[in-house]
Amino acid sequence: MPVKPVVLLSHQMLAPMQAALEAQGYEVGRRWDLTPDQAAQARAIVHAGEIALEPDFLASLPNLGLIACVSVGYDGVNVPAARAAGLEVTHAKGLNADDVADHALGLLIGGWRNIVVGDGVVRDGGWRDGDRMGPRAGLRGRKLGIMGLGAIGEAVAVRAEAFGMEIAWWGPREKPGAPWPRAQSLLALAQASDILVIASRADETNRRLVDRAVIEAVGPRGMIVNVARGSIIDEDALIAALKDGRLGRAGLDVFETEPTPPERWANVPNVVLTPHSAGGTVDSIPRMVGQALENVRQFLAGEPVMSPVSG
Amino acid sequence: MPVKPVVLLSHQMLAPMQAALEAQGYEVGRRWDLTPDQAAQARAIVHAGEIALEPDFLASLPNLGLIACVSVGYDGVNVPAARAAGLEVTHAKGLNADDVADHALGLLIGGWRNIVVGDGVVRDGGWRDGDRMGPRAGLRGRKLGIMGLGAIGEAVAVRAEAFGMEIAWWGPREKPGAPWPRAQSLLALAQASDILVIASRADETNRRLVDRAVIEAVGPRGMIVNVARGSIIDEDALIAALKDGRLGRAGLDVFETEPTPPERWANVPNVVLTPHSAGGTVDSIPRMVGQALENVRQFLAGEPVMSPVSG
Repeated sequence: MPVKPVVLLSHQMLAPMQAALEAQGYEVGRRWDLTPDQAAQARAIVHAGEIALEPDFLASLPNLGLIACVSVGYDGVNVPAARAAGLEVTHAKGLNADDVADHALGLLIGGWRNIVVGDGVVRDGGWRDGDRMGPRAGLRGRKLGIMGLGAIGEAVAVRAEAFGMEIAWWGPREKPGAPWPRAQSLLALAQASDILVIASRADETNRRLVDRAVIEAVGPRGMIVNVARGSIIDEDALIAALKDGRLGRAGLDVFETEPTPPERWANVPNVVLTPHSAGGTVDSIPRMVGQALENVRQFLAGEPVMSPVSG
Repeated sequence: MPVKPVVLLSHQMLAPMQAALEAQGYEVGRRWDLTPDQAAQARAIVHAGEIALEPDFLASLPNLGLIACVSVGYDGVNVPAARAAGLEVTHAKGLNADDVADHALGLLIGGWRNIVVGDGVVRDGGWRDGDRMGPRAGLRGRKLGIMGLGAIGEAVAVRAEAFGMEIAWWGPREKPGAPWPRAQSLLALAQASDILVIASRADETNRRLVDRAVIEAVGPRGMIVNVARGSIIDEDALIAALKDGRLGRAGLDVFETEPTPPERWANVPNVVLTPHSAGGTVDSIPRMVGQALENVRQFLAGEPVMSPVSG
């Protein structure tokens, strides 16, 4: 009887995938109770790309050949170092752009139109005639800036256009054929935008690129929505600007550290917070898990993997 | 010096309009501290159409000729009785359809994607690895039923299509040229819909038309969004269905009584509540107020009014 290939799960949040991997005929090693034999034999590791995968840990897996991220993002993986060590890295390419864009619009409208605040007003008995929730603006004609015009950024743009918003974007690379104008810089985009949505892939080139100057360019009547990665915003500067009124509103699904400590947000006004839930729906999760399983199968069969990271 | 025409404000929530009316050269009578002289002389009353305007009160205004609703809705006005008494009735025709549709989508995404719940999860320290907020579905391919394909219903449809939703609608009258299919009945629409958005004008023909059967047809995995009027839903049946899980979710901006008592919603799961705030933004309110002022001016000048109610 042939020895089963050993496939690791990198984190307890991936435990629900164990049964599916075993059904494929693999022995599953779980990082949180890994045996030395499993570490020695592991050929692939299934990973949630936003979590740091330390070089020391990878170095302890002598037979590893594949890091298969279930997620679209893979900012927790040092891809150049992995490739230098002979490792392939795959991710869930483009499979949840609709879900993330839907969530971005939910944060945008939920903040801009005071829907989350309004829910609290009704439940706390604060509904009175007259000024119930303070002034709120409409969306038609408002300028939406999108940082990062990949699959998610495009999906955000298509949705926002249906609300009558005017779209512009910025990213480090030209996108020939993109139907929306590209700003000269992120700062120029922020200055021209009522609402800035961050939809970029996170990497070392954009760490804290949304800094105090960009935040203040969006300004006291503006809003920042982040469905990408917390690392892209200087979160301390964002919090200070919301407290001072130098930034009007924010909607955040991602944070500098996750889970973000609740006390960090206790006295921060005009911000809607969700627990990194933009990308995971009952529609997208099975597709993402299925693609990770297929990447593992292809790698173990010696075939080209279907969704290697492009970075 | 000619006597100033007397124009009444029907409710304290309209007090901010007093200065604009006075600037037009009118004497403003405020219902909440009305003098007998003002009642005797009043030619027009500026009104918030969702509030009941009692026949007894109208009968106490012998010179009244116009009820000018600042709102789009005018369900608090008995239009046939007013017309029989020789009164013209105007409203804010079509001026805030974008805002109401934006808000409908905000309630829809805020509930369907657990954004309001998620905000509470983050703030209460409930963010844990693994199952953070329970399963959530995507929007692409989901079936959206719209009750009432007026300006607001159409604006909801255009937005929802950008999310990849499939649109159908029902209303009592055919709409030749409507690009979306009309269901045979409201019940048939509910049975075919994942999400039902109520965007009808309220009148006696649709009071509690969204009854237990319609609610159960939307069902345990479905959602009802109401941005029209609370009278259209059997609210007790809706609350019971949410509690029993016979209806999955709801997003409500309007209620049977307003303000709705907070204790009514304390133990009702999966519902997002806003305080009748869909239509009022800094963009739409000045347009609506301006149109009401123009209707008053036209009426007092003996000209045809610009936006009489059509019902």
